[in-house]
Amino acid sequence: MKLFTGLSAFSITPTDASGRVDTAALARLLERISAARADSIGLLGSTGGYAFLSRHERQRAVESAMACVGGKIPVIVGVGALRTDEAQAHARDARKAGANGLLLAPMSYTPLTDEEVFQHILAVAEAGELPLCIYNNPSTTRFTFTDDLIVRLASAPNIVAVKMPLPTHGNVKAEITRLRRRTPDGFAIGYSGDWGAADALLAGCDAWYSVIAGLLPSEAVALTRAAQAGDAREVERLDQAFQPLWSLFKEFGSFRVMYAIADALGLCRAAPPRPILPLPPTDMPRVKDALDRILI
Amino acid sequence: MKLFTGLSAFSITPTDASGRVDTAALARLLERISAARADSIGLLGSTGGYAFLSRHERQRAVESAMACVGGKIPVIVGVGALRTDEAQAHARDARKAGANGLLLAPMSYTPLTDEEVFQHILAVAEAGELPLCIYNNPSTTRFTFTDDLIVRLASAPNIVAVKMPLPTHGNVKAEITRLRRRTPDGFAIGYSGDWGAADALLAGCDAWYSVIAGLLPSEAVALTRAAQAGDAREVERLDQAFQPLWSLFKEFGSFRVMYAIADALGLCRAAPPRPILPLPPTDMPRVKDALDRILI
Repeated sequence: MKLFTGLSAFSITPTDASGRVDTAALARLLERISAARADSIGLLGSTGGYAFLSRHERQRAVESAMACVGGKIPVIVGVGALRTDEAQAHARDARKAGANGLLLAPMSYTPLTDEEVFQHILAVAEAGELPLCIYNNPSTTRFTFTDDLIVRLASAPNIVAVKMPLPTHGNVKAEITRLRRRTPDGFAIGYSGDWGAADALLAGCDAWYSVIAGLLPSEAVALTRAAQAGDAREVERLDQAFQPLWSLFKEFGSFRVMYAIADALGLCRAAPPRPILPLPPTDMPRVKDALDRILI
Repeated sequence: MKLFTGLSAFSITPTDASGRVDTAALARLLERISAARADSIGLLGSTGGYAFLSRHERQRAVESAMACVGGKIPVIVGVGALRTDEAQAHARDARKAGANGLLLAPMSYTPLTDEEVFQHILAVAEAGELPLCIYNNPSTTRFTFTDDLIVRLASAPNIVAVKMPLPTHGNVKAEITRLRRRTPDGFAIGYSGDWGAADALLAGCDAWYSVIAGLLPSEAVALTRAAQAGDAREVERLDQAFQPLWSLFKEFGSFRVMYAIADALGLCRAAPPRPILPLPPTDMPRVKDALDRILI
């Protein structure tokens, strides 16, 4: 199986209030993902709160991840930063720690131009010397990739995949077809946005970059395998069970809900990094009800 | 004159390619602002690239600023960060270095809720123990303040001003009237967006948070004083001279254009932090032409 295909499970990164990574708690989460036979781990993605962690803590997270699941499951590491040189440093750190692939979102403060994002990603891919997935996530970076920019990047060294958001208009199948036609053979096109994963998988995308798989890996693996087998009815059945949780993701943002799920499942008691606030306790019963619908 | 009134001139922060602040070049820029008798300096604002600088470099910038212009002109320091504890640390650093006021934008990666921004700003204002201006800048933070949130913050300790973007609909005078009616006496309402400054000043706003004043302080002071004297014709005449420059700001973003202006004026040769790219050399003649129209 290629690196950027199948189910990529994105873990939260448990930390204390000062942003120090709880490596023991992280290891427990990653071992569950590995045991459930997801196809890869997405470490330090948006769900992993990479934007809120220092270089040192990101390094600690990658090193402890590789120590516990390295060799058992490929680990893809988010290396985004506001500065190009910092993103390059994160990419080098990840490679030295043994990461298998990189994920790069064009984080921004000053809104970026297409040319700036092109040169930024090229520079990080070159420094990282690992297969890199373009992380197209307008809701956090506020940068929207055009097809042209993805196509331009797809022919550069080390850039082998893209993680797309769900299309806001048009259907996902048409988008995949359009991008496949213009990108090199083997360039992997995957999707995030858990509530659209069933559609995207059935439409033939290469990968599901899944938030929920970070905490419910077995259930997300089941949905992925059903889709890969072309069993649309089973996919539909499993996706239906996820619906109450997808509603919570849309209402509160998946980042906040994931901490509540980890708590509800007794996996760890970490809180999201301030200024992000945890879910109000009054909404916890909804989280528990949603989980009851899903758990295998 | 109160701290958050009149002309606040925002300086770029010259650095080398690695993000180390050139304190000598910064001092030259700040002394020009002070000599032109602007009402305050905005240090480490968006124009100052605070989002791209380490805590240590931000500290060096504030310390060198206070050493060169402290006591001559009030210095307002931008203390935004993605983490609440980091923004608090920047605020404490600024106070220890002798800053006169703080400016805080709700930088975000994961989109923030109103309650998160409220608690974030409150926590930083408390830690900073200095007069603080809410920095409402949706184009960089992608957070849009409601009137309700500004009003709620305006009654909290240390929060004494807001820096508004130009209204996207409705007129600036109506907005000022609306906010004045709901905020405490003395709460200062100022505007950024240089091309709308003439209107905002004539409409009676308390402050112009000016990008161009960082490099053309005398010309921006002239416009401000004409507006404060109610001389609409002189304001119009001066604003007309700025038009070609406002066009460049809109086309390329003021952040990129400011480095080109500093270069054209021979003030410093710094480049913006990568991934931000400098203006293409082919556009430099337009910058020089625009400057020729303005320079007193």
